[in-house]
Amino acid sequence: MSKSGLEPIYRVAAIDQTGKERKVGIAGESPLTIKVDDREIVTLMTLGTHPEELALGYLRNQGLIEHVEDVVRVKVDWESETANIFTRSRKGLKYIKKKLAKRIVTSGCGEGTLFSCSLDKLYEIKLSHFKLRQSTIYALLKELTKYNQIYKEVGTVHGCGLCKNNKVLIFIEDVGRHNAADAIGGRMWIDGITGADKVLYTTGRLTSEIVMKAAQMTIPVLLSRSGMTRMGLELARDLGITLIARAKGKRFFVYHGEENIVFDTP
Amino acid sequence: MSKSGLEPIYRVAAIDQTGKERKVGIAGESPLTIKVDDREIVTLMTLGTHPEELALGYLRNQGLIEHVEDVVRVKVDWESETANIFTRSRKGLKYIKKKLAKRIVTSGCGEGTLFSCSLDKLYEIKLSHFKLRQSTIYALLKELTKYNQIYKEVGTVHGCGLCKNNKVLIFIEDVGRHNAADAIGGRMWIDGITGADKVLYTTGRLTSEIVMKAAQMTIPVLLSRSGMTRMGLELARDLGITLIARAKGKRFFVYHGEENIVFDTP
Repeated sequence: MSKSGLEPIYRVAAIDQTGKERKVGIAGESPLTIKVDDREIVTLMTLGTHPEELALGYLRNQGLIEHVEDVVRVKVDWESETANIFTRSRKGLKYIKKKLAKRIVTSGCGEGTLFSCSLDKLYEIKLSHFKLRQSTIYALLKELTKYNQIYKEVGTVHGCGLCKNNKVLIFIEDVGRHNAADAIGGRMWIDGITGADKVLYTTGRLTSEIVMKAAQMTIPVLLSRSGMTRMGLELARDLGITLIARAKGKRFFVYHGEENIVFDTP
Repeated sequence: MSKSGLEPIYRVAAIDQTGKERKVGIAGESPLTIKVDDREIVTLMTLGTHPEELALGYLRNQGLIEHVEDVVRVKVDWESETANIFTRSRKGLKYIKKKLAKRIVTSGCGEGTLFSCSLDKLYEIKLSHFKLRQSTIYALLKELTKYNQIYKEVGTVHGCGLCKNNKVLIFIEDVGRHNAADAIGGRMWIDGITGADKVLYTTGRLTSEIVMKAAQMTIPVLLSRSGMTRMGLELARDLGITLIARAKGKRFFVYHGEENIVFDTP
């Protein structure tokens, strides 16, 4: 958890089916308004454990900030429920202003907010492919069962993990699966981690938006416990992202990029 | 399914863990741009089975259209991926224009797009309460297992049901749980169904946004198979919405409004 993160679980009194009062945990959910040099961009509802990562990753995955070097500081203030990102110029970046001007025609795609500009450069992203062994997928799925701590206690959250070989490098849960993916992107920027040789795991389904986010983070492989949607598949075909879904225990389906999977476990 | 609805399931070839090709179903996902008198409002990603309901319900639940009588026609065109809602004036409604003017400060809360205006009138909504028997909850949960057809085949979707006593009046699935709830609101408007004596069931979690949508539809009880978030609970307390979550089989928790539940099953 980052320094400025909130506690993810709140204890409340609930009545169970026998009529008895019990203390139960529920997931936190707080608004966080993301600003760039004091200019309001969006308000996200978040678990709040990784506000810096979320703010940075949101701007990254929406294609609103292109280079982490343009960011000087992220200031999170839960009193005002804001994460203010200061850029080098302190007056916003030229390219971000241009993009925000298009904001009038924003669209809220699916369960996320998408700027009309975010597709602009998506097709220019070059992904590097690598061979992923079936045995590595199994090892990873086993390793991943150790995570999802908040989900195990209160449900209601999705988790995303950045994986390399059979290791989980980062795992973040949030009330929105988009937020969890964005926060991974933010953490990668902070730590200078590239996406090239990684797998992005998600407990959520593979929709067009999660495919876009993977591309923005230059991660060539998506692995999901859940299923997938038609647009997720179409976009992955266009962008060349390997899609493995409905992956649980020893079962999975490869929906795209099967040439990158080595079936080494009979 | 409405006349202009799309097929919800697409068959694609996927490779299973044995390396064998299999035909599997995946959920449809198509963009649908909602317009009011030709003015673009938002683009949603949807399963596409209930476009009229979704378009109407989205505008209703965002508080952008206040009276169904103001709507003359909904024209769905999948060629252009639009649902155009024509109002009486054919030039947009005065109040909708006023609300859209505030669009510059929109926020994309959690997994949905929320107009800053949508909270304006939320606290003015009067909800009427009724006693809900535990035995009715059990009967409903049993009845609801017959639905969720798309989920059962391909996963990846959420379902919402409008229930009265132990009957499911409407059940709609969509790739987003927000869409499913919105489509219920649209159908209620089309059929002139009030929310007063109903229960809104959802397979998704109870976040602030789903609580807002229930209030917009004047439905006083939310029932979820999943858990809940802190803001969902806080908003439900403010608005007086009964919250039953983690409801499966013979188990549930009442998080708010326990005075409306009759525990009649020992």
